[in-house]
Amino acid sequence: MELIDGKALALQIQSELKDQVEAYTLTGKRPPHLVAVLVGENPASRSYVRNKIRSCERVGYRSTLHHLEEDTSQDALLALIDQLNKDKEVDGFIIQLPLPRHIDPTAVILAIAPEKDVDGFHPTNFGRMTQGLSAYHPATPLGIMEMLRRYNIDTSGKDCVVLGRSNIVGRPISIMLSSKGNPGNATVTVLHSKSKDISSRCAQADIIIAAIGIPNFVKSNMVKPGAVIIDVGINRVEDASKKSGYRLVGDVDFEAVAEKCSFITPVPGGVGPMTVTALLLNTWKSYTGEVYG
Amino acid sequence: MELIDGKALALQIQSELKDQVEAYTLTGKRPPHLVAVLVGENPASRSYVRNKIRSCERVGYRSTLHHLEEDTSQDALLALIDQLNKDKEVDGFIIQLPLPRHIDPTAVILAIAPEKDVDGFHPTNFGRMTQGLSAYHPATPLGIMEMLRRYNIDTSGKDCVVLGRSNIVGRPISIMLSSKGNPGNATVTVLHSKSKDISSRCAQADIIIAAIGIPNFVKSNMVKPGAVIIDVGINRVEDASKKSGYRLVGDVDFEAVAEKCSFITPVPGGVGPMTVTALLLNTWKSYTGEVYG
Repeated sequence: MELIDGKALALQIQSELKDQVEAYTLTGKRPPHLVAVLVGENPASRSYVRNKIRSCERVGYRSTLHHLEEDTSQDALLALIDQLNKDKEVDGFIIQLPLPRHIDPTAVILAIAPEKDVDGFHPTNFGRMTQGLSAYHPATPLGIMEMLRRYNIDTSGKDCVVLGRSNIVGRPISIMLSSKGNPGNATVTVLHSKSKDISSRCAQADIIIAAIGIPNFVKSNMVKPGAVIIDVGINRVEDASKKSGYRLVGDVDFEAVAEKCSFITPVPGGVGPMTVTALLLNTWKSYTGEVYG
Repeated sequence: MELIDGKALALQIQSELKDQVEAYTLTGKRPPHLVAVLVGENPASRSYVRNKIRSCERVGYRSTLHHLEEDTSQDALLALIDQLNKDKEVDGFIIQLPLPRHIDPTAVILAIAPEKDVDGFHPTNFGRMTQGLSAYHPATPLGIMEMLRRYNIDTSGKDCVVLGRSNIVGRPISIMLSSKGNPGNATVTVLHSKSKDISSRCAQADIIIAAIGIPNFVKSNMVKPGAVIIDVGINRVEDASKKSGYRLVGDVDFEAVAEKCSFITPVPGGVGPMTVTALLLNTWKSYTGEVYG
């Protein structure tokens, strides 16, 4: 079994990005600029945003955080989005989810100009991605594709099951893996809450993408020897031995499954760091005009 | 085996639409208005467009045909699209594909306002559909979903294989069938040119959607007894006994497969008439403002 070290790979890609940024700024160009908008005080959201800002600093991007009060009105948020859409010094911005209940997340996402939607959540980017046009791909699946590519994992013609059909992971990764390309060209089945025979379907798969949000859902008996396991789950389970009172586990029963498979991502340190890096890659694409330029 | 009579079903839905149109126009409202744009003299395209116009007449829609010369410039076509986008008397319009080689079809599709894209080909509609937002769904998959719904064919938890991953059929029907809803909630696998074990995968499926463009590709041994067969193929094969010199066949070996399955669509008279009807349904949705209103 080989561990897919998402943390090390993320640092390597960020180091490459840093070199690219320097090459541009040395010629007098301004650095790429990512803006993050955080509404309220959700501790997990604060931690995610802090992490994104820190990653920007690491690669030499300019970053700006707009931290708005919990009771910010939807109109005020939409006004800020409008301003960011128009600001030529902003290459991309993200609205950290979840938002407070009084704000409609769909209205917010639709308000983001697709050209600056570096999270890849706007339907226009989603549709362009699906149709094979240039687009910002959603960050988590993009990070997974980059992991597969850098670890030379062959996906063409492989049987792949995706556990989960969410808009941010399951659905887009299923589309990306079954589209033409490398990685890609896999035979993909999307499994979800209404699917039958989930265990046996997993047990026949060459590649399992687990994005179902249930701790340790994928057991050893659901994995074919030599399969590739990508664990997208980030679940908090109580752990009295930790200072925080919890530890993070994935959707895969790591200890038991690791012995059987060919490649596996750990949690934490697998898909997570690659997601933040994918956001930096999208911001770079906006800066250079690769997608809508 | 029960034949899914797409032609009869299409006429029934069109009759329902006609009643709805009358109810609106009796109150003094103008009828829905669909515009078709045809560039050049491709005989199949002329026949498709004629068919669409005739269907509009049947349901009481106003229709307009812009038939442009083969050597129309891309700029001239884009100017017409811009005019149609702005025309408040036009509810929706379609640009019949394929276009002459000197015109970029992607540039043309991107120029259509999503609000009038009743073919459902614009990436914004595609992304909205995928994300579960209101949207114009691509006509052929929408017609298939309507057929499944009206024939009370249960898809929830069923194993479904989709043969083909095109942007206009395979990809969108795979998304629609595996999304939440009824029809929907199926466990869908997309098969394509790089997939292995296609025969045995088909033979395990409860539902087969064949959209691969190869005459008689799906043989009897690839079909599980009692399966549901939706044949999207429209292939011309030479036939000296016909005046035209050809006949239309689907992607399914109809005679042999019909004996084994529970439901099957014929070619012609199956998916084809439902595609035109789906276009009318999308135009109705634009007229009433259900999608972007």
